[in-house]
Amino acid sequence: MRNDKRLPYSLQHDVIARLDGTVLLVGDRRRLPFERVQLPCADAYEAAAAIRGMVTQGGGPLEVSLWALVQTARINGCDIDEMRRAADALSSARPTNTAVRKELEYILPLIEDFQSPSFASDVEDLVMTRLDYYDACYDAMAHHGAALIEDGDGLLTTCFPEHSFFLSLYHAREEGRTFKTYAMETRPWLQGAHLTAPGLAELGYDSCLITDNMAAAIVSMGLVTKYMTASDRATASHWVINKLGTLSAAIACHERGVPYYAFSLTPCLTGPDPCWADVEVRDPAEVLSCQGMKTTSDSVRGFYPCFDLVPPRYVTAVVTKEGLL
Amino acid sequence: MRNDKRLPYSLQHDVIARLDGTVLLVGDRRRLPFERVQLPCADAYEAAAAIRGMVTQGGGPLEVSLWALVQTARINGCDIDEMRRAADALSSARPTNTAVRKELEYILPLIEDFQSPSFASDVEDLVMTRLDYYDACYDAMAHHGAALIEDGDGLLTTCFPEHSFFLSLYHAREEGRTFKTYAMETRPWLQGAHLTAPGLAELGYDSCLITDNMAAAIVSMGLVTKYMTASDRATASHWVINKLGTLSAAIACHERGVPYYAFSLTPCLTGPDPCWADVEVRDPAEVLSCQGMKTTSDSVRGFYPCFDLVPPRYVTAVVTKEGLL
Repeated sequence: MRNDKRLPYSLQHDVIARLDGTVLLVGDRRRLPFERVQLPCADAYEAAAAIRGMVTQGGGPLEVSLWALVQTARINGCDIDEMRRAADALSSARPTNTAVRKELEYILPLIEDFQSPSFASDVEDLVMTRLDYYDACYDAMAHHGAALIEDGDGLLTTCFPEHSFFLSLYHAREEGRTFKTYAMETRPWLQGAHLTAPGLAELGYDSCLITDNMAAAIVSMGLVTKYMTASDRATASHWVINKLGTLSAAIACHERGVPYYAFSLTPCLTGPDPCWADVEVRDPAEVLSCQGMKTTSDSVRGFYPCFDLVPPRYVTAVVTKEGLL
Repeated sequence: MRNDKRLPYSLQHDVIARLDGTVLLVGDRRRLPFERVQLPCADAYEAAAAIRGMVTQGGGPLEVSLWALVQTARINGCDIDEMRRAADALSSARPTNTAVRKELEYILPLIEDFQSPSFASDVEDLVMTRLDYYDACYDAMAHHGAALIEDGDGLLTTCFPEHSFFLSLYHAREEGRTFKTYAMETRPWLQGAHLTAPGLAELGYDSCLITDNMAAAIVSMGLVTKYMTASDRATASHWVINKLGTLSAAIACHERGVPYYAFSLTPCLTGPDPCWADVEVRDPAEVLSCQGMKTTSDSVRGFYPCFDLVPPRYVTAVVTKEGLL
């Protein structure tokens, strides 16, 4: 598959997920930037476990899940029940981000029309079409995102803001604008330190890594003129669910009149407002260590609700492929 | 020296600093809770380097500096110039917290009246008097702090809130009130994970460690009813300088109507309002690692202004030995 020079290593399609025969290779984001390795998954259930285990995250599970369906078709042939079971496992690997569930609910009815002997290759063709569709979505979102970036901006981001943010930066720079970027490290998994800051440095952007607790300070110092993140879920009414740290940064920005834009690949245009019950609560042990090393004594308890729920008053706009919601 | 069962190991006087002949032993907070060791300092300049190097922090440098003056007197005898040079080195080890400078400016004129041959023991007697005075201050602050804690409270804190906070908890519990505590881990040095959470667990308080980026989430969930921290500097007009993370937590609390109280041993009652120029900027490399392990690629730059400057509108009250300012 093509190499896209506008994106860092971690966001290349072949790095996120690729099929080698019936083995699905998933780019191991937990080991970046120190090691560039892929985790082999023998089937869709191992792929779902890899998603749950943070081998990939953010936009990664969508691509991994699509390839896992191709893998299932290669292994099992035209077995729609097995395709549905695989889709269920992939959709429920992590509950908060609903992009995987929406996508699999969309394509399963299409797959049901496919027949032997071309079943697996038909699924693969469909998946390629869908990946092309999402690439077009990212490009459209980046078109709107780039238009928000002004010369001299200081751009703060949280966690790993994925394709839409990186492509927005690319276009803004191509159009001659200069800006600085600030990446929050994003404890406990350090996606900002492991993925975002190295990606920004790899592509030559003026970038700086900060600890999560520094966001309000640099906003207050006037270094931040825009806050931009991806979102795990966003609504037309401007609710945003995104990685921990997003709420405190958004509130600090709101206090200083700094706009906050959240990219959303698949915004929820209908349905109830999100609530804390929608937020995945993970193993507290994950907050009691850093890169596998304990950070506290064994007697200490932790708590790990792993996303922030950002109310509309702190969200300037949700950026979609159609434009600003 | 006495063991104070109201305080955790890390806050025992003999652990913070003690003189063994002419060697000053400084409790190494960087290695807690994993190892209980003290760093030997041969003179006041090594003690100043230990303060700069985060061997001790918060209220630690005040006790270390007082004992370093006794050490200087034991080594050099009645040499006022050398006492002044030692005091200068200790006062300037870290610029933001002015408690050490204020204390040494107060006692140096008293020391100038001391004579051989009792010079060193006179300095030691004075230092013991001052430590007793500070203990009385902590007790008075805790009296006012405990009165703020209500039954059922959820108490959030940042960094290591020292004696005043721990003694406040002690009195509130003695008076029969129950409460939960939440400690922010406080990157990059993890004082919350290394000192606060283990100290709370050691004393049997209901406590929970969170990552710094989780503060706004737990405030938003309604788990926090009061936010309480120490302060590296506070003014009568309610400006507070305290560890990174304090500003974002204080803003999040303000948004939810949760009061924020900052303990201050030596509030600045006169002088200009603090500004970002008062905030120590440390080696950016400190934010690019965690517990000595790199967190990002070598190509990434960091930034480390190590305190937050909290404006008065987010501060409910400064708690002093006289009461609430």
